[in-house]
Amino acid sequence: MSRIAYVNGRYLPQSEASVNIEDRGYQFGDGIYEVVHLHDGRYVDEDLHLARLERSLREIRLPMPMSRAALSVVLREVAARNRVTEGLLYMQVTRGVARRDHAFPAKPVPPALVVTVRRIAPYPTDVDRWAASCITLPDLRWARRDIKSVNLLPNCLARQAAKERGAIEAILYDEATGMVTEGAATTFWIVDEQGAIRTRHLDQVILPGCTRGALMAELRQAGIAYDERAFTLDEMRRAREAFITSATSFVKPIIRIDGAPVGDGQVGPVVRRLFDIFARHVKGAQKNAA
Amino acid sequence: MSRIAYVNGRYLPQSEASVNIEDRGYQFGDGIYEVVHLHDGRYVDEDLHLARLERSLREIRLPMPMSRAALSVVLREVAARNRVTEGLLYMQVTRGVARRDHAFPAKPVPPALVVTVRRIAPYPTDVDRWAASCITLPDLRWARRDIKSVNLLPNCLARQAAKERGAIEAILYDEATGMVTEGAATTFWIVDEQGAIRTRHLDQVILPGCTRGALMAELRQAGIAYDERAFTLDEMRRAREAFITSATSFVKPIIRIDGAPVGDGQVGPVVRRLFDIFARHVKGAQKNAA
Repeated sequence: MSRIAYVNGRYLPQSEASVNIEDRGYQFGDGIYEVVHLHDGRYVDEDLHLARLERSLREIRLPMPMSRAALSVVLREVAARNRVTEGLLYMQVTRGVARRDHAFPAKPVPPALVVTVRRIAPYPTDVDRWAASCITLPDLRWARRDIKSVNLLPNCLARQAAKERGAIEAILYDEATGMVTEGAATTFWIVDEQGAIRTRHLDQVILPGCTRGALMAELRQAGIAYDERAFTLDEMRRAREAFITSATSFVKPIIRIDGAPVGDGQVGPVVRRLFDIFARHVKGAQKNAA
Repeated sequence: MSRIAYVNGRYLPQSEASVNIEDRGYQFGDGIYEVVHLHDGRYVDEDLHLARLERSLREIRLPMPMSRAALSVVLREVAARNRVTEGLLYMQVTRGVARRDHAFPAKPVPPALVVTVRRIAPYPTDVDRWAASCITLPDLRWARRDIKSVNLLPNCLARQAAKERGAIEAILYDEATGMVTEGAATTFWIVDEQGAIRTRHLDQVILPGCTRGALMAELRQAGIAYDERAFTLDEMRRAREAFITSATSFVKPIIRIDGAPVGDGQVGPVVRRLFDIFARHVKGAQKNAA
């Protein structure tokens, strides 16, 4: 079955789904996106993703293409038409089609909305097989990384560099300060030398991860302490454990960084526990929504 | 007559000219562009623009979509089909269509090429009427501004801010150092307190402007000294004259910055002379190419 995409009010075979060459998403990257995990027919942390979408849009002064409720209906319809129950939803909102000019269109045009979904493998059950390696790279991105825009060229170049070195993610750091920021498309966490679960505090330097937020809520619920406090590359190299989170990584153990083992190079007890907690969260999201 | 665009091997009415929603230009801004001034039926500084296109593509490891000679034929054909002799050419090369993944497509896909042209007003003859105002803003862009990529969201936001304050360009500066970088889509120059013509040296912090380079060649030819040396916001505010250059601005006097006059707030003698020199360059390009 060919995939069906939603594009500006129409459901189309994805191979024929297109946008005008003067869509500002294409010429300027003037748009916002979200990726949402679809598990057992339900969108995981959908509210968090839609709230972040609204926030990102507001930050670049782009209106929602439709109400949140209407958008939610489209998301369901895309899943249904593609008969996908385990998948990844992708949605992108851009500032529409207008004659090329950096400034916003003088006469406002409707924002463009594209939604697709694709099937993915069932939720991972074996945390050891889910473990992976990272590299480190300087963070070259712009100053407003809290906005989830489609200006993703630096992220693409970092991910490609990781792939060529047999890793699945690039952990980025500020060259001036040596502080770790986040992964190219994930939140990065460590269990530090003292055993504290740490990830960077939120500001304009990193994206407010939805999986990050959902995991933190689960940790609070479980009475597990965590620390939102930036750390250096050196602290990272001395960490006992490390992991990344995102809508596509869930809780993913990182057992090697730049070729060196993290801790003993095996999945550690803390990450193992968080993997289980987040797996319950994903399944709970299904139950709660039902 | 409706405009004709070149899109991946076909000439199409621009209103119907589209790219697939999984074109990496749309989802990642994974592409490079150039804007070239068409005067009297000739592309001004075409060689400089094509050389920069090749350089930008190389920096992000994207192949040319066709040979430079073949591309040059397409550029001429787009102008001819649109019957435009005074215009702006736009071309964009992206990493093609592939299933969404930050890393480059595992199986290489052909790069996508889009070319459009639009009519513009005749070349300005009155330098006083060509003068304009700027504002200043922190430079929020990524670390590789020497690459002319379509990751232009910060540029769009800066230009929009300028427009809302009655200005035509935002002059960007490094917040940490107070050094001016360049305009959101132009090169910025001053005639400093001592009368020196100055613009920032080239490195990864600014784009190597083609009009900048062409003007410098003309200045050398005319025996006029210039200084490639960065300056602070303060030096800018004390400047006698200021101007911007780009393929769409040519040499454009800047007579107000953040509401305050530059020098006496009139077009000064140096910028007036450079405007004339560049006008001859544009017309000479036509003659040389004929």
